[in-house]
Amino acid sequence: MSPEPTPVPSIAETLDGTAVEIIDQTRLPHDLVHRRLDSLDAAAEAIRAMRVRGAPLIGVTAAYGMAFAVRDDPCEAALTRAAESLRATRPTGVNLRRTVEEMTRFLRDLPVEERAAAAWRRAGELLEEDAAINRAIGEHGYRLLRELAAGKAGGEPLHILTHCNAGALATVAHGTATAPIYRAHAAGVPLHVWVDETRPRNQGAALTAWELAQTGVPHTVIVDNAGGHLMQRGQVDVCLVGTDRTTARGDVCNKIGTYLKALAAHDTGVPFYAAVPGPSIDWTLTDSAAIPIEERDAREVAEIGGRGPDGRDGWVRIVPDGTPVANYGFDVTPARLVTGLITERGICTPSVEGLRSLYPERA
Amino acid sequence: MSPEPTPVPSIAETLDGTAVEIIDQTRLPHDLVHRRLDSLDAAAEAIRAMRVRGAPLIGVTAAYGMAFAVRDDPCEAALTRAAESLRATRPTGVNLRRTVEEMTRFLRDLPVEERAAAAWRRAGELLEEDAAINRAIGEHGYRLLRELAAGKAGGEPLHILTHCNAGALATVAHGTATAPIYRAHAAGVPLHVWVDETRPRNQGAALTAWELAQTGVPHTVIVDNAGGHLMQRGQVDVCLVGTDRTTARGDVCNKIGTYLKALAAHDTGVPFYAAVPGPSIDWTLTDSAAIPIEERDAREVAEIGGRGPDGRDGWVRIVPDGTPVANYGFDVTPARLVTGLITERGICTPSVEGLRSLYPERA
Repeated sequence: MSPEPTPVPSIAETLDGTAVEIIDQTRLPHDLVHRRLDSLDAAAEAIRAMRVRGAPLIGVTAAYGMAFAVRDDPCEAALTRAAESLRATRPTGVNLRRTVEEMTRFLRDLPVEERAAAAWRRAGELLEEDAAINRAIGEHGYRLLRELAAGKAGGEPLHILTHCNAGALATVAHGTATAPIYRAHAAGVPLHVWVDETRPRNQGAALTAWELAQTGVPHTVIVDNAGGHLMQRGQVDVCLVGTDRTTARGDVCNKIGTYLKALAAHDTGVPFYAAVPGPSIDWTLTDSAAIPIEERDAREVAEIGGRGPDGRDGWVRIVPDGTPVANYGFDVTPARLVTGLITERGICTPSVEGLRSLYPERA
Repeated sequence: MSPEPTPVPSIAETLDGTAVEIIDQTRLPHDLVHRRLDSLDAAAEAIRAMRVRGAPLIGVTAAYGMAFAVRDDPCEAALTRAAESLRATRPTGVNLRRTVEEMTRFLRDLPVEERAAAAWRRAGELLEEDAAINRAIGEHGYRLLRELAAGKAGGEPLHILTHCNAGALATVAHGTATAPIYRAHAAGVPLHVWVDETRPRNQGAALTAWELAQTGVPHTVIVDNAGGHLMQRGQVDVCLVGTDRTTARGDVCNKIGTYLKALAAHDTGVPFYAAVPGPSIDWTLTDSAAIPIEERDAREVAEIGGRGPDGRDGWVRIVPDGTPVANYGFDVTPARLVTGLITERGICTPSVEGLRSLYPERA
């Protein structure tokens, strides 16, 4: 058991206030390497190369990217260029787009000489807000898990299946889907997490397994193909996933493959919850088919990276040379397959009414 | 385009009649290596190590394993030991178990001195039968694909999704799920195959992609997570998979993850067919929960093999050291999610009645 009930933050300001430090997630799980970001280009590269990933963490990193940009050049044109550069890094998540737009609007209204300091302050606020949101999701989700665990036979752990990494590494801290897990584990609720490998980038096998090990949460890695079988055999009590963008109707756009697990949960009567931070909700969106689905480099599928037998990082090619490969990043789980949304304001049904009941100011 | 309409056989007797040659499938897709099997131990090792895999090819290889065993020692005890040794290699498929039982019964009834020659002849008959079954599946499935293709807008290829390798490499020749594809392709039906990677052993990415390339069938490799998204977006016209064991009610036990694709097909209205050779049907089985699901070595999930940047085969570890891993080989797709079974006798509904209509002698 680790002494830490929740993993260390994934991003933090340096003490001199000129940069942020991140965990370079492309080096996990075999090496824990920190990286200093102190320019727009460094922030954009870190997002594009998925050194930071997860919708909330991408949003906060983008905010610091904007702050670095206006510190180096606070003029109008530089602001626009920075926003474009950041928006182009990842198309699917809503936090990135919204953060960049809000930062741009906020900074445009300020005198040029005030922009640098204001941008830095605002990025810091967003960082704090994300941690607070996830703490609150953890509290609401904890009550749900505690209740589900109470229904288990004495001593049997609650089996939770999760997909991808909606963990501390996807956020500033706590994680979204993992926040209730860390909170319940710290409170002594017996639980066990089935960790989907999450091809093609293996965020489950590499990142979720790493952070659950850090905090001593019992877990088992499985291939993405296995979850349906486990649900058929009664070995999953609840599915708990994150979201990259949530429609106003409660459809959940998350890592590719989430839809398949929701179908299996629905077919086998396993409750399926998404941890939904308010900023991931796209209030203007009701048609999930309008969400742009990122298509990424075929090499992410064709070549798998990890630690080689020589103890060094390497990769192997798993398809024949010249094989055509397609690489879709996300899919949409329709609200009808989702049992509930765990937000920072409480749990609601995945519907216009459900979301409005928690966010009446959006109605 | 390759000159061959269907890949070369995966197993063949040597001309001197003392051994069989196989393609060592653990070396594909990067190296085409043949291997000579001439003893019970060599046959059992080839099945266990998945140098040969796929229910039909396993069955035929096991028959030759029995033939080698009785050639080396035709006595009763040796026969029993050989049967036990082969049965223990892979628990889920029905062909293996049935072939071993049939060979044992058949050989027990013969005088000891006749067993060696009779076993070799019987193994050869099973080899021929498998090729004939798949040719027939190809004809029936071809008519289905041609019909589906006729419904497509002019020139648009028929998009087929397949899981794992139910190809020529899983059988003696033609494949089961691939037989209709090769037949339709040879007849000029425009088609394109979405090839599921099929973690953890990547039989789709490595084997199906390899054999489709050999025959010039257009294809694209995707991760197992992607099929649901493609079906949601209307990019799959039909799913076509194999089976390792089929219940008398039409439930299909196939490679882990098949159930998830069947759920997505059902949810999106995409027809879902299994190619079912008669010998894969377990007529005594109606409760699919009674099928033993093979659990394999955790290393198959934790360590991924392929070709390294140095041009040599290697592997990388994708989970943190010490991570618990579970590795289930198969799942069961309930008949209610299956549109039809393509057998060597025609296509039927996945039901007791459907199967009985084609195999009345089993009623």
